[in-house]
Amino acid sequence: MTKIIAIANQKGGVGKTTTAVNLASYLAYFGQETLLIDMDPQANTTSGFGIDKSSLKRSSYDVIINNSKIEDAIMPSGVDWLDIIPANRDLIGAEVELVNTISRETRLKKAFRNCPGNYRFILIDCPPSLGLLTLNSLTLANSVLIPIQAEFYPLEGLTELMNTVNLIREDLNPVLEIEGVLLTMYDTRLTLSSQVIKEIGKYFSDRVYQTIVPRNVRLAEAPSFGKPVIFYAPESKGAKAYQNLAREVLKGNGIELKEGPVGEKPKYPLAVQKETKKDLTITGK
Amino acid sequence: MTKIIAIANQKGGVGKTTTAVNLASYLAYFGQETLLIDMDPQANTTSGFGIDKSSLKRSSYDVIINNSKIEDAIMPSGVDWLDIIPANRDLIGAEVELVNTISRETRLKKAFRNCPGNYRFILIDCPPSLGLLTLNSLTLANSVLIPIQAEFYPLEGLTELMNTVNLIREDLNPVLEIEGVLLTMYDTRLTLSSQVIKEIGKYFSDRVYQTIVPRNVRLAEAPSFGKPVIFYAPESKGAKAYQNLAREVLKGNGIELKEGPVGEKPKYPLAVQKETKKDLTITGK
Repeated sequence: MTKIIAIANQKGGVGKTTTAVNLASYLAYFGQETLLIDMDPQANTTSGFGIDKSSLKRSSYDVIINNSKIEDAIMPSGVDWLDIIPANRDLIGAEVELVNTISRETRLKKAFRNCPGNYRFILIDCPPSLGLLTLNSLTLANSVLIPIQAEFYPLEGLTELMNTVNLIREDLNPVLEIEGVLLTMYDTRLTLSSQVIKEIGKYFSDRVYQTIVPRNVRLAEAPSFGKPVIFYAPESKGAKAYQNLAREVLKGNGIELKEGPVGEKPKYPLAVQKETKKDLTITGK
Repeated sequence: MTKIIAIANQKGGVGKTTTAVNLASYLAYFGQETLLIDMDPQANTTSGFGIDKSSLKRSSYDVIINNSKIEDAIMPSGVDWLDIIPANRDLIGAEVELVNTISRETRLKKAFRNCPGNYRFILIDCPPSLGLLTLNSLTLANSVLIPIQAEFYPLEGLTELMNTVNLIREDLNPVLEIEGVLLTMYDTRLTLSSQVIKEIGKYFSDRVYQTIVPRNVRLAEAPSFGKPVIFYAPESKGAKAYQNLAREVLKGNGIELKEGPVGEKPKYPLAVQKETKKDLTITGK
């Protein structure tokens, strides 16, 4: 059985992409065949794996707009057990192109009727809006994982996100569940944080993950090397947090981990472990 | 002469709203009559001034969609010399409603043909996308101020933002300038930051503000009190940074500050200086 989890929050900068990249990597690390779909026009998940966005043959845009076959859009992530459907800037136009399309909220779901492979988990990195790309993702998904920063502005947006989830349940996907709420970028210096955490706990109760992702230098640096943190700094606090999150997600889905690779160094020889640092270059006319 | 500055970056969480709220407040503090337009459906700028979004008579949605008069949508911000056109969740639908509208990128510009008052500065807080609300803002504006976090993912988006600015120049607004690039949420613990700053400096050269906004607890806490930081913690590093930014913006626009209130405590008795802490409450069915 495949579990499809949308990682969504219309507030930007709350850690959706960092969570998508690193949770997917650790699920794969624990031996779960996983597919990660980049549905964000910013395509940061795609570049987080060091994939060159400008030379993609197929992308998530082709799947949702051009009826491309899923298998043609899937490519290796460089991490064993983890595949990816990458995105590029074509996806910017998709939101507008979808507006006048028949059944515009269910196109992704239809595309996945014939999903190849035998994935145990499919994760979807949603864009920071409640537009049609997010609605398509929530319509396809079994559940939604909400990363949220423990600050005031992000908290404000949760009401709206929950209203959207409820609308989707009424009309498009009655079985959509809350997979969990993940507190990210936790900064112990912020006195506000504990109050926000209390309020989130009151609303979501046991749906809040015990794992809290700290603000962590290594997590921020890893994408500039085109690597998930598991290969950039597996001993960092950020890496440990996502490893713990993966364990919680597995447990929540009834998967017991046997004695295994916990605490060990990643054992896979991986294409992504190249040492060349990506250029930090801004282009544009 | 009114200077209209759009605060834009399609990456979320880079400090657009914090910059809009606090730069506008300090421009007003330095005696410049200022109008702040909230064009982000998340309406965080509106709540940053403690304005109740659920009880607005008119909002930026009415201006761009319903042809409401500007003067009917303007309300006091609670800060002397600063007015605001607030937003609420109506604006979520505007992006889609605009798709099939005639001259859909120029509606905001047309609405402002008859702008009341005598504003020296109009600031626009754009949403985190390059959709029609941002295009309308960039078409109305004289210049764009780009807040950017000194990390890898935000830097990736700058190329795309600059491509959009160039398209707008070609088609809709040939005089659109770069007002400046503002480095935000600077964390000295991040070794990546200095490399990002170097790359940004290479591309934008003297358009990068000397002021760098640090990651600051007080800046993050202020909105939960419905206050700009000038009234919440005027002595904090975050407040000083935005005061310095306002001075740079004024200088860049040929406005010399005489001996004045710099370093003094704010002298205005302000409606916004209420001491009641806002409830941190998530609602939703």
